Amino acid sequence: MTRYQHLATLLAQRIEQGLYRSGERLPSIRSLSEEHGVSISTVQQAYYLLEEKQLIHSQPRSGYFVASRKAVPPVPALSKPVQRPVEISQWDEVLDLLSGRMETDMLLLGNGSPDLTQPTLKPLWKILSRQAQKQDPRILAYDSIVGCLPLREQVARIAIDSGCQLGPDDIVITNGCHEAISVAIRAVCEPGDIIAVESPSFHGIMQALRGFGIRAIEIPTDAVTGMSIEALELAFDQWPIKAVIVVPNCNNPMGFIMPEARKRALLALVQRFDAAIIEDDVYAELAWEYPRPVSIKSLDVDGRVLLCSSVSKTLAPGLRVGWVAPGRYRDRVIHMKYIVTGSTVTQTQYAVAEFIRQGYYQPHLRRMRQIYQRNYETFSCWVRHYFPCGICVSRPQGGFLMWIELPEAFDAVLLNRELRASGIQVVVGSLFSASGKYRNCLRLNFTFPLDARTEQAVALVGAAVERAIASCAA
Amino acid sequence: MTRYQHLATLLAQRIEQGLYRSGERLPSIRSLSEEHGVSISTVQQAYYLLEEKQLIHSQPRSGYFVASRKAVPPVPALSKPVQRPVEISQWDEVLDLLSGRMETDMLLLGNGSPDLTQPTLKPLWKILSRQAQKQDPRILAYDSIVGCLPLREQVARIAIDSGCQLGPDDIVITNGCHEAISVAIRAVCEPGDIIAVESPSFHGIMQALRGFGIRAIEIPTDAVTGMSIEALELAFDQWPIKAVIVVPNCNNPMGFIMPEARKRALLALVQRFDAAIIEDDVYAELAWEYPRPVSIKSLDVDGRVLLCSSVSKTLAPGLRVGWVAPGRYRDRVIHMKYIVTGSTVTQTQYAVAEFIRQGYYQPHLRRMRQIYQRNYETFSCWVRHYFPCGICVSRPQGGFLMWIELPEAFDAVLLNRELRASGIQVVVGSLFSASGKYRNCLRLNFTFPLDARTEQAVALVGAAVERAIASCAA
Repeated sequence: MTRYQHLATLLAQRIEQGLYRSGERLPSIRSLSEEHGVSISTVQQAYYLLEEKQLIHSQPRSGYFVASRKAVPPVPALSKPVQRPVEISQWDEVLDLLSGRMETDMLLLGNGSPDLTQPTLKPLWKILSRQAQKQDPRILAYDSIVGCLPLREQVARIAIDSGCQLGPDDIVITNGCHEAISVAIRAVCEPGDIIAVESPSFHGIMQALRGFGIRAIEIPTDAVTGMSIEALELAFDQWPIKAVIVVPNCNNPMGFIMPEARKRALLALVQRFDAAIIEDDVYAELAWEYPRPVSIKSLDVDGRVLLCSSVSKTLAPGLRVGWVAPGRYRDRVIHMKYIVTGSTVTQTQYAVAEFIRQGYYQPHLRRMRQIYQRNYETFSCWVRHYFPCGICVSRPQGGFLMWIELPEAFDAVLLNRELRASGIQVVVGSLFSASGKYRNCLRLNFTFPLDARTEQAVALVGAAVERAIASCAA
Repeated sequence: MTRYQHLATLLAQRIEQGLYRSGERLPSIRSLSEEHGVSISTVQQAYYLLEEKQLIHSQPRSGYFVASRKAVPPVPALSKPVQRPVEISQWDEVLDLLSGRMETDMLLLGNGSPDLTQPTLKPLWKILSRQAQKQDPRILAYDSIVGCLPLREQVARIAIDSGCQLGPDDIVITNGCHEAISVAIRAVCEPGDIIAVESPSFHGIMQALRGFGIRAIEIPTDAVTGMSIEALELAFDQWPIKAVIVVPNCNNPMGFIMPEARKRALLALVQRFDAAIIEDDVYAELAWEYPRPVSIKSLDVDGRVLLCSSVSKTLAPGLRVGWVAPGRYRDRVIHMKYIVTGSTVTQTQYAVAEFIRQGYYQPHLRRMRQIYQRNYETFSCWVRHYFPCGICVSRPQGGFLMWIELPEAFDAVLLNRELRASGIQVVVGSLFSASGKYRNCLRLNFTFPLDARTEQAVALVGAAVERAIASCAA
């Protein structure tokens, strides 16, 4: 037996005996080399052997982990929401979620905020600082109602990657994607109208609908391919639906990317019923595939798609720089934008424009995609390891969100309340349904450093879920 | 005859002969001293003599001006708007006004933007620059839904000057006063409701009402004392009015300060009919009287006043830092804020908080008040001088806006179109009425440097008005 085979056997025994638990990180190559007085390459070969036997698996830049003995959990089945338009509820739950932001020592596993600590953001700080040093009064003044031209030029440039041919005049800058969606809804609907949404669907969209007195009809949605076109057609046949809101790329909360054929089918259906599409593209640039998936907007021939996006997930949410490419609804969108906030913060618009113009955006995106994909791999191992069997987990293809479906009787509201005491917050699934469905679901994000604190938090959530399921069953 | 008497006689002759025109700036003391080979104090004494004779008048830091031979124009009479609730129109005109912001070489006499060039703003630039240098990720992150605590603490502090006892939890930060008013309206009303407004009333308020499907009833408003309480009572008797929106301090567009007794009477009336008051306080800190006039909010005992304000008129509009003190409507306001934009830009919130905390705000306000008051004195002389007789002009008591009423048949829309060609923009009065009244009125601002370009612009507007009136009469 060679040295590396000997070491591999020893490690395999330790795993067998439970000294290294399923999902746990194995000692670093250097520390094993020191512990056993063998060379680095011997340890490496031992790890390769164990990997071949599927006893361990490697994660780029994170090290080696004991393979989970649990099977990979299935994705959630096609959702089955209420088949009629409903008024949106759940505001109290959203408020509860938002109030977590104020508690600085809380680990916000439910927060939709990106990692703000990466070095590829440094040029943004420099740009902000230089702008202020120059004391250019322009950046303290009111901006134009449609947003500053240099930014609209850069947004048009990056829209090319989604397949869109847009000019600066096709874009209206907003206070983040949130305002973009708010004004898009107002531009295509009147109070009392019906809008079709994915189910589950982002709570920010839901509350915007509620705020404008619009009813939502939730359309069954597949965790891999997105909104069911067949179910949407049935809904169109039955109800006077004014618009469809979708997050087709790196969906919030499930992370899927709708296949291009389905995007085309969705657009064709919406054309047939002469409705509009509000497309939330905010996570799309974080898709792990390259080039990024196309937007529905890029397939649009008659201006019925309102593309909404921002830099809140790719750069930083506090900048409040978003936009809408409103197509044929431009005039209405500008009016609604004026009504809602009048104008958008000026300095950060110029800063984001400069950041893109100077070529810092694409390298930053590349890095963030890598980080989130790596985070996802580790995070999903942890979930598999620490959560009980019998759950369904979405398989994100980009972004930094994951949707977990627990048994029907499970109450995530109670879970969240319990976790609060341990300084952890998750998002309760019922926020993602107009009628309060998905109380048995959770949304987690994986933007956090993959350190002991995060792993411990996932372990805590998993243990709490296991206890709750046990008490449901009892 | 002494030297100074001799010089005074000479100057009086020149004025008589029209060599120095009515309203024109006289030569500086230094240049007259050089021209006539006399001492500085001789020229000063000559000017004092002419001032005593009311042939000239001095303006602090601006010099001496030839007294106008025209009588001071009267203020506009009590307005007589339509006496029923109406849907708001005039969006096209507002859009036209906003599009002027994009034309950089235009002299925007209609813009509601402050002077951004004063040295008392320098510390703000420094704070913005230092913040960015520190690279504190907090300022790129989502803020709490109610806004950052340090800012709410400072806003509570400055609210003391308006007579309000508020804590940080009584304040919700917004994207400028514009969003504050938007969410306040949504918090107290449902679509189809009726709100009472001043007449004329700021077009941003009008459009917010329109956007939410609310009808406005315009209440007769006095150019010196504000909204008629008697007329408001009649309106309350007749219509189910949900709220009253007022700009009681340094009114936009007329500049009046509502006397405290009338503020109390307004509040008592609104209490009797159990309605709400939305108080736009955004120009109040620029009142020329010191201490600043009290807010209606400060008189409120049962939380029915929603105080809306921002730093857009006092510091800089591009910061998008505003707030609402929503009283009993706090929960609704937070919900509407979430629906509309989700959160407010973070960096500028911290910057404004620091600017106030470090004591830079009050000195800046003092300076800006002095500048605008001085500007007003010169500007109103120019208006008197260059505009024809028979006009009414408001007498602002703070802020930087002036309202001019021309003969009934006058069309300010046509005037504005004509002025555009000369690179000048004014605000057409009809924007300030739900029913398109006040087409014979203009709003001008006096934030511009009092240089030859501005004087020439006022002269151009005056001449165009004179021509238009003549053609009306013909």
